[in-house]
Formats: sequence, C-alpha cells, structure tokens
Amino acid sequence: MAVPDQGGRPTLEDVAAYAGVSRSTASRALNEETYVSPQAREKVLAAARDLGYSPNQAARSLVTKRTGAVALLLSEPESMVLDDPYYLIVMRAAFRDLANRGSQMLVMFVDNRDDIPRTMKFLDGGHVDGVLVFAPHIGDPLATALRLLRVPVVFGGSSVTNGKGLYTVDYDNKSGACLAVEHLLSQGRRRIVTVSGPQDQRSARDRLAGWQETLTAAGIDPTGMSEPADFTQHGGDVAMQRLLDRVPDLDAVFAASDPMAAGAIRALRSAGRRVPDDVAVVGFDDNPRLAPTLDPPLTSVHQDPAEQVGEMIRMLLQLQTGQEPAVPRLVLPVSLTTRQSA
Amino acid sequence: MAVPDQGGRPTLEDVAAYAGVSRSTASRALNEETYVSPQAREKVLAAARDLGYSPNQAARSLVTKRTGAVALLLSEPESMVLDDPYYLIVMRAAFRDLANRGSQMLVMFVDNRDDIPRTMKFLDGGHVDGVLVFAPHIGDPLATALRLLRVPVVFGGSSVTNGKGLYTVDYDNKSGACLAVEHLLSQGRRRIVTVSGPQDQRSARDRLAGWQETLTAAGIDPTGMSEPADFTQHGGDVAMQRLLDRVPDLDAVFAASDPMAAGAIRALRSAGRRVPDDVAVVGFDDNPRLAPTLDPPLTSVHQDPAEQVGEMIRMLLQLQTGQEPAVPRLVLPVSLTTRQSA
Repeated sequence: MAVPDQGGRPTLEDVAAYAGVSRSTASRALNEETYVSPQAREKVLAAARDLGYSPNQAARSLVTKRTGAVALLLSEPESMVLDDPYYLIVMRAAFRDLANRGSQMLVMFVDNRDDIPRTMKFLDGGHVDGVLVFAPHIGDPLATALRLLRVPVVFGGSSVTNGKGLYTVDYDNKSGACLAVEHLLSQGRRRIVTVSGPQDQRSARDRLAGWQETLTAAGIDPTGMSEPADFTQHGGDVAMQRLLDRVPDLDAVFAASDPMAAGAIRALRSAGRRVPDDVAVVGFDDNPRLAPTLDPPLTSVHQDPAEQVGEMIRMLLQLQTGQEPAVPRLVLPVSLTTRQSA
Repeated sequence: MAVPDQGGRPTLEDVAAYAGVSRSTASRALNEETYVSPQAREKVLAAARDLGYSPNQAARSLVTKRTGAVALLLSEPESMVLDDPYYLIVMRAAFRDLANRGSQMLVMFVDNRDDIPRTMKFLDGGHVDGVLVFAPHIGDPLATALRLLRVPVVFGGSSVTNGKGLYTVDYDNKSGACLAVEHLLSQGRRRIVTVSGPQDQRSARDRLAGWQETLTAAGIDPTGMSEPADFTQHGGDVAMQRLLDRVPDLDAVFAASDPMAAGAIRALRSAGRRVPDDVAVVGFDDNPRLAPTLDPPLTSVHQDPAEQVGEMIRMLLQLQTGQEPAVPRLVLPVSLTTRQSA
C-alpha cells in the first residue's frame, strides 16, 4: 500500500488527493455533513486513516510529536504545595516563562504513591512535550517512574538517584548554610543552633551539613544543637521551643527555611527573648513576600525560585531540540541578604 | 479496503492477525527491534496504521475519546489566583475529588487575553475530557471562546453570558449579603458601610445589591456608604480608610471578602476604633484559614469552595456521559458563621 511521505503534517488537500475527491467533498465527509455519497465518505475516511490525518490535535501529535504543552509536576502532599510560598513563585514564574515562549503550562499535583500510575499514563500519552518536576523527597518513586518517559524531564532540586540522562537545576544549599553561619560567627555569636528541614530531603540535609561543618571548623561542638522540623511556620515554632529548653543559653538560630524562621521568631518572642538583641535569626529562601515582612525583617539566604525554574525551562528546550545541555546538573549560587534579624 | 470494526480499541493481537504475523513478530516490529524481516515489518506497520493502533495514548484517544484528564482553568491575573485562599482551596479540593474518581487534574492559568488562543488550542486538542472554569470577570472573552469547545464545560460562578448549554455552580451571593446586614441590624447597628468587591464581577455586584436592598428595606439610606476594592487585604485597608474619612460615625462594616475584612480591621485599629465595640465587622467567604485566625475572629458569610467545585465535577461527569443536569445553573445556599467581630 502506497502511503505518501509523512514528514510533514498531512493536510485536508492531501486527504482529498489521496481519496480522489474534491477538497470540499473531503471536508464534508470528515465533518459528517450530508450531501456526501457513502462511497465517497468511505474513501475519504480510509484516506484520512492511511495518512494519519485528523483535525484533532491528539492525532497530529503523533506526526509532529509536539503538543506545545509542558507539565509542571509537584510531588508533595497537597497542603505543602499550596501553603509553601516557594511553589507559588515557581508556578507563577514557570507559567509566565512558558507562555512567553508560546508553551502551555499544565500544573499537575502528585500527592501520594497512588497518584503516580495515573500521572505517568497522562505524561506518557503524547499530551506534553516535556516535564518539569519538583520531587524533593529522597526515594520518591515518582522520580524512578519518570526515567521511563519518552519526553524530556528536568528536575528542580537534586533529591533523585544519580544516573546518566538525569537533568537537574538546584541551589547550592550547603554553601548557603555556610554563609549563614559565618555571618553569625562574624557577629560574635557562638551558641548557634539550627532548626533543620525534613531529613528525607537533600536540600535539608545539605543545609544541616553546611551548618555543622562551619561550626566544627570554628571549633564549636554542634552536638545537641539541632532540631528537625517540616519547613513550616508551626514546625519552626515547636522546634525552637525544644531548642530553648535544651540550649537555654543559645544566642543565634539558623532556620533552614523562611517559614521556619518566622515560627522560631514567634517562639523566641513567647519565651521573652529579643530578636536580634538576645538571639540572632537567619532564614533560608529570602522569600520576597515573607522575609522583609517579618518583625524584625529577616536576614536570609537568597535563592530565587523564578531563576531556578527559568533555568529548568532553558534546559528542557535544549533537550527538546536534541541538544545535550553543557551542564546537565546545574548548581546555582546563593548569597546572603542581611536585614535586622541578624 | 476492509478495516475491522473499530468500536473497541485495537489491540496488538488485532494488528498481528490483520498483518498475518505472530504476536511476537508484531511486537518486535512495532518496538523497532531487530530479528524482523523488512517485509514483516512493513506489513505490521501498515496494519497498525489501518487499524489506528498505537501504544501511544494520543492515538488511542481518537478511538476512545477519553483521556482521563480534566482541566481546571483559572482566568484571573496570576497574582490573584495564587494569593487568594479561595483558589488554593479550589485547586486542592478539585485535585482530590478528581483523583478519587481516577481523573487527572491539569491546572491551567489564563492571565490575560493573549493566553486565550494557546489555551483553547490545547483544550480543543483531544487532551482533556472536560473543563472546569473560574472566570469571574464579566465580559471575559475566554467564556465566549469556551462555548466553541467540543468537550463539556462547567463554570464556577455566573459571570458569563446567559445561554442554552451553559452550566454553572454558584453561591447565593445576594442572600449572603442580606444575612450579613440583617445580623448587624439585629445588633442595633445603623451606620453600616460596605467595602464592596470589583464591580466587573457578578458575585461582587450581587453582594453590593444585597447590602443595599437590606439597608433600604430597613429605612436606611445607603448613599455614600460604600467603597469598592479588589478583594485583597490591602484594598480593604485603603477602602476602609476612605470610608472612615467620609462616614466618621460608622458603626459597622460589611466587607465582601475575608481578605478585605482583614484589611478593614487593620485600618480600623490604626484609626483607634475597637472591633467590635466601636465598629462591628462581617466578612464573606468564612475562609477556614483566615476568618478564625483574625483578631478578633471574624463573623463571615459561609461558603465552601470545595463543595462548589465538587458540584461542578458532578455536573461535568453527567455531561460526559450524555446526561442533561437536572439544574444546569445551580445556586448553592450560604449561611452566616458568627464569631467575635460582630
């Protein structure tokens, strides 16, 4: 059976020519209008089938392999995704960046393991040209499942198994923690505790390691000086109370996220400690809607989720055009924004 | 050319039988493995084309007309969507409800008019089985464009042109405003001002009308007693300051959203007015994360975005199975939750 070259998308004209009918007959047959003989209709439908023609994008995507859509996949409990200002900035920046490039962003949540098969089925169904993923938890089975996809995938953060063909954009979490602790040391603080993030996340582990190594290098024993929390304000509050009980003479806190720093400040105030006079506080995120609005305004390690997702999109576009990114695992530098809290 | 019945989705077995080869040969040919003769490969590929067979969902969707995905379309400036707790609750509730039914939610933002063609192209491309829309602004061109879609569409709110085949789920905004004002009247308040919402939104207009009619029915002249804002906290703050200047003897405020009520309380406090002693405040939303956390806790008209989007999903499912909903324009009742602010 002779089938025309399918390099380009087949047009209505191609279908009409192949079926040996006029363009208008082909159009009427495909649109299920009347005034088309059953024979002509059958010929047109067969031609459309042979050529892979359809006015429907789902069919076109078989030929062009492009849908113009990119999925932004957020693998976190829903509450975390929608409460964390980090993800709100990511959603907004990714939407605008993709829209400016003519791409449609689709936000997809993955709340737990049960959501994975359905999500994978959609992603592998020819509906998207690429996937941006935030899956911060080490061992998240989604990360493994995504390796099987036939479209390019770029991860935000690095809580994924090492391997060839893995593309990530992350911040230098460890250096950020070092900056924070060095700043506190330079102000004469010595009893520097930390409210760390959940230790099933690489970013939280790296921030804890940076705090620990910087203290150790300064000759300070970090034993008993850290308390983990869940990156939320409430978690930061509770962890700070525990630290106050255990280390009553503490004079500084490095909180591994801005919401936790906000919780820590609340706990310190409740305990009658003045910030920064009695206890200096440094956060991590430098979230523009949180850090400057706290009382006192928060000194924080600066990272920009919009920059991160912008780099992820740039990497995705390279992969979509068959280019290998020069740096497949990109680490972005951080800095310290100083305000009144430390 | 004889083509088998395509009522069901063609299977690999169908392709093998049609091509006259074994199942394993068909599989190898389709997966581009070796150990398949060029002739067999050509026969299998032709069979797959004829039958419309593809392991790819984009092709299957032509046959089944179902992708398992539902778009949640939010037509608001991005900042509004991601700052307003209403939409955060909608996203979360819709995700969970659809996931429980085995459907994949895709969140899509429409920030401005330029985003519409791209959005429509995706929605009309066979990638989704239905669309849930929040497009609160009267005259939003998206609402008109959506009428052309070939998949079912259900609107949250009623800021859309009347017409057959239009499906909406909304709250009874006017009755809610009446409840609020009657509550204030019953407490002996007479100088009841309102911070109204943006008047290009039907919900805001209906709340203003409810306030106005209830005051008028009680023999109170509402002239000069209202000030519009944008549903945000900052907007509520500014509008309240204007009302304090214009109506210095005001003794109550009906704010048409909880964030605006929060702003009004802030402005009242700055002006040295006690809530509720000097000025009673009633909001609208009864947002569980905002109303009870304000100081004082806020009396507010109760509506539940999760219930609304749940009803929208139920209506969408009916439309997807070809049923006409009993009530195509559903209006849900509201109630008043009283707390300390009024």
